[in-house]
Amino acid sequence: MPEISSKGQLMPPSPIRKLVPYAEEAKKRGTHVIHLNIGQPDIKTPKLALDAIRNHNIEVLAYSRTEGSDAYREKLASYYAKHDIEVTAEDIIVTTGGSEALAFTMGTILDEGDEIIIPEPFYANYNGFATANGVKVVPIVSSIDNNFALPPISEFEKTITSKTKAILICNPGNPTGYLYNQEEINQLVHLVKKYDLFLIADEVYREFTYDNKQHHSILSQKGIENNAIIVDSVSKRYSMCGARIGCIVSKNQRVIQTAMKFAQARLSPPTLAQIAGEAALDTPQSYFDEVIAEYVSRRNVLVTELQKIENIKIAKPSGAFYCVVELPVQNSDEFAQWLLEHYSLNGETVMVAPAAGFYATVGLGANQIRIAYVLKKEQLVRAVAILKEGLAKYLSI
Amino acid sequence: MPEISSKGQLMPPSPIRKLVPYAEEAKKRGTHVIHLNIGQPDIKTPKLALDAIRNHNIEVLAYSRTEGSDAYREKLASYYAKHDIEVTAEDIIVTTGGSEALAFTMGTILDEGDEIIIPEPFYANYNGFATANGVKVVPIVSSIDNNFALPPISEFEKTITSKTKAILICNPGNPTGYLYNQEEINQLVHLVKKYDLFLIADEVYREFTYDNKQHHSILSQKGIENNAIIVDSVSKRYSMCGARIGCIVSKNQRVIQTAMKFAQARLSPPTLAQIAGEAALDTPQSYFDEVIAEYVSRRNVLVTELQKIENIKIAKPSGAFYCVVELPVQNSDEFAQWLLEHYSLNGETVMVAPAAGFYATVGLGANQIRIAYVLKKEQLVRAVAILKEGLAKYLSI
Repeated sequence: MPEISSKGQLMPPSPIRKLVPYAEEAKKRGTHVIHLNIGQPDIKTPKLALDAIRNHNIEVLAYSRTEGSDAYREKLASYYAKHDIEVTAEDIIVTTGGSEALAFTMGTILDEGDEIIIPEPFYANYNGFATANGVKVVPIVSSIDNNFALPPISEFEKTITSKTKAILICNPGNPTGYLYNQEEINQLVHLVKKYDLFLIADEVYREFTYDNKQHHSILSQKGIENNAIIVDSVSKRYSMCGARIGCIVSKNQRVIQTAMKFAQARLSPPTLAQIAGEAALDTPQSYFDEVIAEYVSRRNVLVTELQKIENIKIAKPSGAFYCVVELPVQNSDEFAQWLLEHYSLNGETVMVAPAAGFYATVGLGANQIRIAYVLKKEQLVRAVAILKEGLAKYLSI
Repeated sequence: MPEISSKGQLMPPSPIRKLVPYAEEAKKRGTHVIHLNIGQPDIKTPKLALDAIRNHNIEVLAYSRTEGSDAYREKLASYYAKHDIEVTAEDIIVTTGGSEALAFTMGTILDEGDEIIIPEPFYANYNGFATANGVKVVPIVSSIDNNFALPPISEFEKTITSKTKAILICNPGNPTGYLYNQEEINQLVHLVKKYDLFLIADEVYREFTYDNKQHHSILSQKGIENNAIIVDSVSKRYSMCGARIGCIVSKNQRVIQTAMKFAQARLSPPTLAQIAGEAALDTPQSYFDEVIAEYVSRRNVLVTELQKIENIKIAKPSGAFYCVVELPVQNSDEFAQWLLEHYSLNGETVMVAPAAGFYATVGLGANQIRIAYVLKKEQLVRAVAILKEGLAKYLSI
């Protein structure tokens, strides 16, 4: 049998993949599984986006332009202008989800053996795209004790080598929920200018900021036009993860021209979903006000309930809809599996994402889990009760 | 300014990319441009596929499963069974177009520096995906004189090294229109078994075979279950290129498991388009009968008209909807540009795809063009007349 590639063997599996069969077994036993593990919001997609699809009058479902339709890109530019990001349609390439935006960005700026610095814990799939490109992730540990704030910039500076090409942040963060403040962004801007690095910001949760805190986009900063690349997506913004529409935004025309060559190889992003994405840009602010109020109230419920559990640490999120929790366990992988395999409370159990998969440093995060608060409050209350009782039982074994 | 990657610099641009501005200029001058250059059929998408989208009752446009929805994969397995390809849903990963199927396949079986043998001319984007993966394409020249039949298998065997991991064919071929016969497939099967290589077949034009010739899928062959990988797509089959739905099919479970890790990194294929893809599988045979009759009649018109041009060679296609033509010119890139920049007949000109971009060997194909016969017959007649008159004028300058 011919061998698969070394790269393929190195590709990291999804952090929750090995739990999936246990969740399926639990369901077969009749146990209801509350999914705290996935970032698939239950929030309704704006009706105007879904209606645009219902009302299409397409006869030939043709390719769109490689860079995305002009109409959509023009409208995206207006959207960014409202967020203090001054770009034109020419600075935007529409991609198949934020995932493809990440893949194109890595291909555009990183060669095999190059290094990219990422504060950890970070979105697990950054590891996948880095492995697929033969790129080395250099993690900088951030701490749950300060809600995963930016580590001292000196820690970043220490790790810079001749192979370092970029720093990648997710703001607000998945899995941390941390929102970088202006001073933190300033430090990153200063550093990438000093060493002539790219600064990539995954800003897919831009709108989801709480407690009157402000999002600071890297493309709103002065003087790093040639260094900054935004990775974006409609998935969370409009609760339309299944659309698979994202984009790359950069004022650096070499970046855009090069990413276009990767884009040409795959012809075009999905046509139907671009129609939905374009319509979604007319979503009124009231939708976001409601959604944000809902997430804040879910977060508050989640944190309040979690605080009833002894000996745990909670990183209080100020953005996105994730919360990292440190548990008094040695191995959250085993605990998560045990919850699915051996525990239930009133016929229910929970599935959580073990946090080790969000770290590049081996051993870190082994006592942490990530909770996505994309469920209704009553479900969150029940889920945390299960976690509390389950944990007590697990520790008593 | 930070540097882009060497890989990004090496990425080949689309073969027609540099012609695009000239086509736009021509349109601005009021010249109508007949596009012979793109494989975007004008054939209508089956109404049942478009209706499935119109009638959706989605409230939350959620991720599908990473491997594609179970319902769609089950139905795909039945589709393949009808084509003598015995596979189950577990052997299929739904991808974002055939493009992503190619990208995942390359990532799964090829490391940087590995070699893949491809008969040329071949679909230009194979070069892009190979470059993105740092893979070396080893071309085997096929000849217009025998309609681009499979070159002698000894030519393939000669180029096999310790770095060779796979042979990739497109059957029927883009840009050649050639359909491999059973004997040619047998030779490839024998070779990949002898050297334990993967055999990848891009079979996206499976249905489009003419003159009562039969398509021979690599997965209908015995004894290469572990070597064979099919790359497939709904784009051409149902004239829905904009859906961006394709798939990988393999009985080799290591291939499927590894490709799944690449698939997990990008989360899921487009949800809306899978609905269309699933519905499209109910397209009656009468649709294909009509479409195939239409393509055959277009091909016949095209070839008949082309034969009126002196000193050209035509590779008569027996499948797909492309035709490679050799012209009495030194450089078809320049000729194609000249047609757009300096020529028109009754207010019209044509855009063709210069064939050099379909070859990996530098210099080959410089006197060839690819014509996609995805236009109505009357347009094809006018287009060839323009080509004939234009060529005569070009040669007289």
